[in-house]
Amino acid sequence: MSAKKFSEDHRVVYYETDVTGSLGIGRLVDLMMLSSEDQSDKLGITNEKVGERGLGWVVTQHIINIKRLPKVDEIITLSTQAKSYNRFFCYRDFAVYDQAENELVTMHSVFVLMDRSKRKMVRLPEDIITPYESEYTKKIERLPMPLTVENASGQKNYRVRFMDIDANHHVNNVHYFDWMLDALPAEFLLSHRLIKMNIAYRREVYYGDQVNSAVEIDEDNLLTRHTIMTGEQQNCLAECEWAEIK
Amino acid sequence: MSAKKFSEDHRVVYYETDVTGSLGIGRLVDLMMLSSEDQSDKLGITNEKVGERGLGWVVTQHIINIKRLPKVDEIITLSTQAKSYNRFFCYRDFAVYDQAENELVTMHSVFVLMDRSKRKMVRLPEDIITPYESEYTKKIERLPMPLTVENASGQKNYRVRFMDIDANHHVNNVHYFDWMLDALPAEFLLSHRLIKMNIAYRREVYYGDQVNSAVEIDEDNLLTRHTIMTGEQQNCLAECEWAEIK
Repeated sequence: MSAKKFSEDHRVVYYETDVTGSLGIGRLVDLMMLSSEDQSDKLGITNEKVGERGLGWVVTQHIINIKRLPKVDEIITLSTQAKSYNRFFCYRDFAVYDQAENELVTMHSVFVLMDRSKRKMVRLPEDIITPYESEYTKKIERLPMPLTVENASGQKNYRVRFMDIDANHHVNNVHYFDWMLDALPAEFLLSHRLIKMNIAYRREVYYGDQVNSAVEIDEDNLLTRHTIMTGEQQNCLAECEWAEIK
Repeated sequence: MSAKKFSEDHRVVYYETDVTGSLGIGRLVDLMMLSSEDQSDKLGITNEKVGERGLGWVVTQHIINIKRLPKVDEIITLSTQAKSYNRFFCYRDFAVYDQAENELVTMHSVFVLMDRSKRKMVRLPEDIITPYESEYTKKIERLPMPLTVENASGQKNYRVRFMDIDANHHVNNVHYFDWMLDALPAEFLLSHRLIKMNIAYRREVYYGDQVNSAVEIDEDNLLTRHTIMTGEQQNCLAECEWAEIK
């Protein structure tokens, strides 16, 4: 049995792009997440239905590979499948294609189901999983974890704004990515392109929180490491691989 | 002769909404502006063509009336026409409809064409205007101007981030609206809904700028006034009318 695939098209528009004319990385992740929500809705496993049982999906990690970021006005195809699962973890694959069916981006993501009141992970209920036709596996994937920032070369502070919270009552993804990348110098962002990002979520941030985004640049290996902290709490960490723009 | 109309549909998705589940006001304005760009593209008057002549469209004012903000997953129809023009100003109307053809939002906007190197307004060239079939009028509209903040009841500072600049090389609209509204207390935003907004743009802000968003609340008349300043420079001001959520 192989997991059900879901695909949909999207036109990249000006306000989703950055100054380079490419789709912003946070918005790219939003779009991929939207495709998984749309698959769930189509299969009748809506967020509302999951919510009625006191549960909610939470992403713990994304590993993103980028060959090329789509450009403004480009039509892209977002494709996703809930590949496999074990007692606690769901592994979902995403891909983004251009109109010539070139694969532009892939993302591998780990989801868990949280008991909203107990704030604890729950065992995945069969009836929530079955419709996706995911493959059951005993194996828990050992994905590489981003290393924490040891010697920050830069840092900036942000306050979580009212408009940063979306209809899902979460700080929208795009803001974590913006906080992380905005901590890099503009000259770096304009002379490098992101080719790989490994981001792990540890703890949610809330409206009004002050977050600190610290970055460490390893120029030799074209690596950057990022942490988002509220006080001593680590909320999110990431490791990025870059290529020089020639 | 009456100006050509252009319409397109849009599905409101979770990351375009705020915590109330409604489309954010900044994103709403983005969507309406997108419909005018799409009309221009269809008529062959693309931003690139205008840009090749050293010119660029700039909005100086929006007057927005809101009956109801669309909800997550709602399909809306965005409609626009370049209603009339005189030597220097273009007046454009926008409307947003729900699937039952109820008018949810209207916006009246003033556009000028700027010489990008001289940073000066230019007379509107006939060949750029003709395709829209706008009505020529000698009259310059005297739109109400938002009053400036006299006694700020709150204020917050923001830094223009790398990701705030879009493919048009402007700080995207959504950020002005976010800066303005985020300066209001969350309790106010959760207990009131925006019914009218008059926003005037005076001067652009740039990457790295520190902006101050000040707000004055007139509780008796359910009015708020907003200014965005960089130092002593006024960049943007707005007046909002609100209704209590019962």
